[in-house]
Amino acid sequence: MSLLVMSALLGSCAPQTEPQAGTGAVSAAKKRADYAIAIHGGAGTIRKEDLTPEQDSAYRAVLNAALDIGEKILSEGGDALDAIEQTIRYLEDSPLFNAGKGAVFTHEGKNELDASVMRGADLGAGAVGGVTNIKNPISAARAVMEQSPHVMLTGRGAEQFARERGLEIVDPTYFFTQNRWEGLQRAKAEEAVRLDHDGKQGYAPGQEEPGHDYKFGTVGCVALDKAGHLAAGTSTGGMTNKRWNRVGDAPIIGAGTYANDATCAISCTGHGEFFIRWTVAHDVSALMEYKGMSLMDAANEVVNAKLKQAGGEGGLVAVDRLGNVALPFNSEGMYRGYARPGERVVAIYGSPSQD
Amino acid sequence: MSLLVMSALLGSCAPQTEPQAGTGAVSAAKKRADYAIAIHGGAGTIRKEDLTPEQDSAYRAVLNAALDIGEKILSEGGDALDAIEQTIRYLEDSPLFNAGKGAVFTHEGKNELDASVMRGADLGAGAVGGVTNIKNPISAARAVMEQSPHVMLTGRGAEQFARERGLEIVDPTYFFTQNRWEGLQRAKAEEAVRLDHDGKQGYAPGQEEPGHDYKFGTVGCVALDKAGHLAAGTSTGGMTNKRWNRVGDAPIIGAGTYANDATCAISCTGHGEFFIRWTVAHDVSALMEYKGMSLMDAANEVVNAKLKQAGGEGGLVAVDRLGNVALPFNSEGMYRGYARPGERVVAIYGSPSQD
Repeated sequence: MSLLVMSALLGSCAPQTEPQAGTGAVSAAKKRADYAIAIHGGAGTIRKEDLTPEQDSAYRAVLNAALDIGEKILSEGGDALDAIEQTIRYLEDSPLFNAGKGAVFTHEGKNELDASVMRGADLGAGAVGGVTNIKNPISAARAVMEQSPHVMLTGRGAEQFARERGLEIVDPTYFFTQNRWEGLQRAKAEEAVRLDHDGKQGYAPGQEEPGHDYKFGTVGCVALDKAGHLAAGTSTGGMTNKRWNRVGDAPIIGAGTYANDATCAISCTGHGEFFIRWTVAHDVSALMEYKGMSLMDAANEVVNAKLKQAGGEGGLVAVDRLGNVALPFNSEGMYRGYARPGERVVAIYGSPSQD
Repeated sequence: MSLLVMSALLGSCAPQTEPQAGTGAVSAAKKRADYAIAIHGGAGTIRKEDLTPEQDSAYRAVLNAALDIGEKILSEGGDALDAIEQTIRYLEDSPLFNAGKGAVFTHEGKNELDASVMRGADLGAGAVGGVTNIKNPISAARAVMEQSPHVMLTGRGAEQFARERGLEIVDPTYFFTQNRWEGLQRAKAEEAVRLDHDGKQGYAPGQEEPGHDYKFGTVGCVALDKAGHLAAGTSTGGMTNKRWNRVGDAPIIGAGTYANDATCAISCTGHGEFFIRWTVAHDVSALMEYKGMSLMDAANEVVNAKLKQAGGEGGLVAVDRLGNVALPFNSEGMYRGYARPGERVVAIYGSPSQD
């Protein structure tokens, strides 16, 4: 059953004005849901005709298994932060997604990983950027939050911190996958990141779109636990063929990740530069807090109005303090799913008839 | 004349509830000011008794000279982005401030610089983090915005990009100042960044305050030009004795820097971790856009209510699209100033009787 059909059955689907881009609004009852969890495995040009039935099944199986992990923690009364960390670790360990094992390659043929977490109860936050040998960057981000006075550590310094804190360090070759390596070779051939054409003329924002064939495979998770606390996390390998130690939105608090018990928890995926410039994750929260918008309306305003108008492709998953869930995206598809007591939905494509 | 007295004379000072922490509200007439520029050189424990008369004069002279540079560009019809870049370059070149020449030292005895810029017209943004040999990081941030498809570059990659784009590269020893070196030795002795006490217990947010003697010497500038466009920029050496390639709020769009022609331009200075977690710069803009607050009320709400309650020390400078200026801070002092046609104010301390 598709997410949108499911939403309609719940009698709470927001007006569906974009047949190819889900608003992804799913309401809970007015009383708070016991718990809720939502995940994404990236947004982009993901069409049913691009996946074999076997690939389609493999993605759905991993998304369901990831939700199983987080839902078990939440249903047993565990913490939202534990739920999102363990769920994201599982997605990082899967080679299907652009995070941890399976991360895309930089222009120089390396894997540089970014991740962040945020805790809604006290706005605690942690992030790592450009790390190359930490097996699970999401756990390093949590360690930065809990075991350092800082929010964001980068590069070798972040790696040294993770090693000192006992996190699992791997040889950088751990992150190699043949599929991603071939993706880099294609991207270089196509100059998918067109940096060298003309360094002097500069780039207008409208020129920043990546190549048609580009996928945004970031993973993320948001959760509401039984105690009413929210948490969010995001992990990524960034852009294929990226250069100059580029950092995207995934490790930027307020851009790719945000959580505030007063409003919502958000994890984003998409063309990171737009998500930074539009401060996407915090903007959804601000629209709720200052303008009184619902989670669905706020998330759709940012993803399907602001970002879409700007040409910023991608989506996000969100849960509010009542357990409402929104999974909007303005790209052709987004690997996504959510779970609440008695509910489970996993979906990939933008058109209800395909899922 | 003190900023606050000046504000009172203008007949537009917001209610002054914090005698030791300026609300720094300065209103323009209802019609748009022809241009406006505001700068800061850092906030922190800055008391009149801590500066000799010679030091006091030296800081005021540099703040005035910086304002001269930006004001000349604006009064001649130049671009807000040019005004903030050239003003910040001058502050970076001054050894008095913790940015460019005069940057503080990391735990390892290096200077790692962060900077960002944002353009209000189209939300264009650029940032560099953790660079060690770019003479003027603010210009590198602008080059990232204008000459790359990315928003944020870090470390050696950012340095390579700056070199390729023809920016001035210096030997890292250029940034050495005896004063900052001695500051590092004191900080190490005092364990001002108390990272090693207990790695396992973690840090609650309330434990994050730096030592009493801590100064936040970040520099920043915001401007409104005659065409009605806003721009903001921030540049810093970060925290004395910082470790693990820590990145603060200065290069984080939405935290330390934000500009949007629809609302305001903001540059922050203070305890960066709090400014990231509270998404300070974007929050001021969101309070104006979504809640209809004035610049003064929005800036004070974030600095003197939210951050103060959280224990996040620092301040910001802000200008809105009408040329209203706000320079609130919750610390004992903030090097600051602003200029509009026929107006010029430079101030340091928190108490009106001292300036």
